[in-house]
Amino acid sequence: MYWALSSPEKVETSLQLDPASLTLPFMPQQVRVAFSASRTYNFFPGILDQPISFDTLTTVLGECFDVMSGRFHCPINGTYIFFFHILKLAVNVPLYVNLMKNNEILVSAYANDGAPDHETASNHVLIHLLQGDQVWLRLHRGTIYGSSWKYSTFSGYLIYLD
Amino acid sequence: MYWALSSPEKVETSLQLDPASLTLPFMPQQVRVAFSASRTYNFFPGILDQPISFDTLTTVLGECFDVMSGRFHCPINGTYIFFFHILKLAVNVPLYVNLMKNNEILVSAYANDGAPDHETASNHVLIHLLQGDQVWLRLHRGTIYGSSWKYSTFSGYLIYLD
Amino acid sequence: MYWALSSPEKVETSLQLDPASLTLPFMPQQVRVAFSASRTYNFFPGILDQPISFDTLTTVLGECFDVMSGRFHCPINGTYIFFFHILKLAVNVPLYVNLMKNNEILVSAYANDGAPDHETASNHVLIHLLQGDQVWLRLHRGTIYGSSWKYSTFSGYLIYLD
Repeated sequence: MYWALSSPEKVETSLQLDPASLTLPFMPQQVRVAFSASRTYNFFPGILDQPISFDTLTTVLGECFDVMSGRFHCPINGTYIFFFHILKLAVNVPLYVNLMKNNEILVSAYANDGAPDHETASNHVLIHLLQGDQVWLRLHRGTIYGSSWKYSTFSGYLIYLD
Repeated sequence: MYWALSSPEKVETSLQLDPASLTLPFMPQQVRVAFSASRTYNFFPGILDQPISFDTLTTVLGECFDVMSGRFHCPINGTYIFFFHILKLAVNVPLYVNLMKNNEILVSAYANDGAPDHETASNHVLIHLLQGDQVWLRLHRGTIYGSSWKYSTFSGYLIYLD
Repeated sequence: MYWALSSPEKVETSLQLDPASLTLPFMPQQVRVAFSASRTYNFFPGILDQPISFDTLTTVLGECFDVMSGRFHCPINGTYIFFFHILKLAVNVPLYVNLMKNNEILVSAYANDGAPDHETASNHVLIHLLQGDQVWLRLHRGTIYGSSWKYSTFSGYLIYLD
């Protein structure tokens, strides 16, 4: 299903000539799953509990992430890790962000500043997922600052395949 | 494209002579090591330099983490990465957190807010560990906010087995 | 200690019947690439857009990072992840940090506090790199707090070899 065995003679040669490639074993291309997204525009949802969408996909392996919906779609059972950093606008409204697995809160982050000033809400989680699970960021309350410098980011990847 | 098995006799030999270079295939189930924990209750230690315990284990592979003591026990030599996010209570006392390897400070994080308001102390480290090493979070000073939304988290996992 | 190959016929069978069990890749010694660095001294560049250097290398695999220049030199094509946490001095000057790939901004972070107080600028990125690419932190503006407690850190590692 994943990769093919070539003839033994070829392997032996490859191993001797190119230690880097020989290194063999590696995550087969088909099961590499990773994404890294960012927002370059502000986001003012107005109402509570909106999904955070993104507009820039720095990296994607495995067609696992939809920037418009902001959702990671788990393509294969395994253990994944996710990270986010979301910068609030310099207004005196606190920012609450939830990292969701389907409709369940995995972890959350909060940012505020009485000045008012920017501040970043960030957190991470390491979680086992099944194929079809969705992981996404929910903006419970607040507004997000976006710029081409990419302060607001969301990434994840497969660390151990089941 | 990836690798091929040479004749079975040769493979067998390679495995016996140099397991590390043989690079064989795949992280065995036995050496998957990962945890992700969070606090859902406040923590007011009162005195300096207390271990941060946790009460929720989102994920664990390898029986490596004890929530009550807050300690990761390294089960096998390798290179690991750890992440933490600790949210302080909205009081005007700064929060100092140290990520410890046994009794040595690996990295630290600080959070304060004159308002007073919440603020998160976060950091990470990538470190080589030996079997038996312990990694834990020390609350040097301050108080931690806990809620079922899981703002305060600690995770780690094995990235490269020795 | 690791695992044993059964007869070649059995291996072949196992691959065909149970792709999930073959799972994870064992990164060979030759292509392990990772570093974790920190600053233990303050940094006052005075002018804009200076590279952030480091003085402590907690971990390095693959001779990929130069603390003096603060630059990661990509030794092999693959997908990498990078993390940074930079603590600003308790002065009323904001801190802007860019994570750079060669001369391109990958992501950024901002920290300020009107008090004045310390605050941390942090972010991460997951990115595909080619051999010879350089990844480094640029201090666009601001000053960095350094101490032996290692508040200011920068790490990265190879997650999937091409």
